[in-house]
Amino acid sequence: MSRVIRVGAAQLGPLQKSDNRKVAVDRMVALLEQAGREGCNLVVYPELALTTFFPRWDIEDPAEVESYFEPDMPNAAVQPLFDRARELGIAFYLGYAELAKNGADTRHFNTSVLVGPDGRIIGKYRKVHLPGHATFDPQRTFQHLEKKYFEPGDLGFPVWPAMDGLLGMCICNDRRWPETYRVMGLQGVEMVLLGFNTPATNSQRPEEQDELRGFHHELSVQAGAYQNGTWVVAVAKAGEEDGHKLLGDSMIVSPAGLIVARTKTLGDELAVADCDLDDCVFYKETVFDFARHRRIEHYERITKQVGVVRPDSTAAV
Amino acid sequence: MSRVIRVGAAQLGPLQKSDNRKVAVDRMVALLEQAGREGCNLVVYPELALTTFFPRWDIEDPAEVESYFEPDMPNAAVQPLFDRARELGIAFYLGYAELAKNGADTRHFNTSVLVGPDGRIIGKYRKVHLPGHATFDPQRTFQHLEKKYFEPGDLGFPVWPAMDGLLGMCICNDRRWPETYRVMGLQGVEMVLLGFNTPATNSQRPEEQDELRGFHHELSVQAGAYQNGTWVVAVAKAGEEDGHKLLGDSMIVSPAGLIVARTKTLGDELAVADCDLDDCVFYKETVFDFARHRRIEHYERITKQVGVVRPDSTAAV
Repeated sequence: MSRVIRVGAAQLGPLQKSDNRKVAVDRMVALLEQAGREGCNLVVYPELALTTFFPRWDIEDPAEVESYFEPDMPNAAVQPLFDRARELGIAFYLGYAELAKNGADTRHFNTSVLVGPDGRIIGKYRKVHLPGHATFDPQRTFQHLEKKYFEPGDLGFPVWPAMDGLLGMCICNDRRWPETYRVMGLQGVEMVLLGFNTPATNSQRPEEQDELRGFHHELSVQAGAYQNGTWVVAVAKAGEEDGHKLLGDSMIVSPAGLIVARTKTLGDELAVADCDLDDCVFYKETVFDFARHRRIEHYERITKQVGVVRPDSTAAV
Repeated sequence: MSRVIRVGAAQLGPLQKSDNRKVAVDRMVALLEQAGREGCNLVVYPELALTTFFPRWDIEDPAEVESYFEPDMPNAAVQPLFDRARELGIAFYLGYAELAKNGADTRHFNTSVLVGPDGRIIGKYRKVHLPGHATFDPQRTFQHLEKKYFEPGDLGFPVWPAMDGLLGMCICNDRRWPETYRVMGLQGVEMVLLGFNTPATNSQRPEEQDELRGFHHELSVQAGAYQNGTWVVAVAKAGEEDGHKLLGDSMIVSPAGLIVARTKTLGDELAVADCDLDDCVFYKETVFDFARHRRIEHYERITKQVGVVRPDSTAAV
């Protein structure tokens, strides 16, 4: 049985503050139509795909903050995307800001869902590794307030049986952390879907050469793919949003760590590749046969301590 | 206070089966002399630097196996290296096959030592991630019997205060495992020293393009450096040993994950770089500030399970 998934990495160009949900959804549907014509089975959209990347502002008005969040998924604004995907029989990954209500309790997460070709939500992931900071930082050239607007994900890194394989999800900064891929790798993941919004310059080191931003993105994704023998589909919201440039470089990476498809622009663009899940097998059974090679007795620090404990200190930080 | 270490990555060309320890040590001393002329403070030699890479053969004669191991370190054969390094005030990393005796009990490890500029051994590391297999494998185009000749290291991944910084060690295949760097990163490591002997072709997939070997080597080392904000010095035994080609590509990688020096040949060659340990600080205090960003509550699988547990199974493998 062939286990080839034709994947469309559906990069979005910028969404301005003035763009409403309909602008975003119309553009996503247009990419979905293209994906349908190209025979895709699965389309991956960016992180926070429905709005501009609002954590770059220190917003004080609670109502304005709430306006970026979705209390329900799907909802009326995104229903056209769900409907058209179901008609075309295309599964998709969608990132959005989630307002989770439980009675009077409300919680905020940076979330993604995996929607099956039948339009049903197969799985939900909430971003674990929130970058940035929680309060206004005057040292930065621009803000990155994800720790203000979201709480860390509480669902771990599950892996779902789907598309005749095992699929996982993560979001943006998660991709820089080898723990992200490894936790999914230990569940046999064969394809990791991830959306991102990555500033094209470093807010804490403006003199850094911008090329490093793309290099670190690629390095992290390619290493995560290779070291776990898994496909990774990484998809950007790209281009200049309200005066702030975002990285593009959406890509599909093979279990060998090779970039097999990538976007060439900073706008709406679909990059397509046939991803054979059986390409994972060689790596999982040889160099990264975890059962034969891992030595967990020496890994204890990874789960016992959060921060650095230097050999000359006795206190955890 | 400046914390710049001038590092020499002292790649060795091939050592044939017929070469004795003196051949290896003489060549290492020659590289040491060059390092001294170039002002190096620290020289890194390969894994198993004193002999040919013997795990490529299935050796049946116990005496022949033992002939590749060092019961003492230093010993008469390597004393000239220790002596000359002390005279020059150069610290070094040396990989060798260790025969550890404890009464009648003998154990075998793939080991490295870090020797201070005063000639004293600062630390010892025993390779944790042994690649390959334990018995003859007729499916391979050549053997890789590290699991036959060595037992897994029992010393973990310590980090030592040295050279005004924190130095760690690992060996060859360890570099492909993000756990290796992370355990040292969680101790604040600022420079990881590693030697390797990596076959230039894949014994289990001879049709694989050979370029992948170097790519996977670089990818793993560069990701480990970046994701922990540490220097990594990776040094090969290179070239054709007894008809078997080994990868070269010795390199010094910065905390940005950039290759700042590398060898250009498959022979004895010294690649030099000034490594400022303070270059680690930016990464350790921003994107990889572990204390602020790591979420160990979601990492449990990394230390609780060795092999893959698929979501559709209940049994660990």
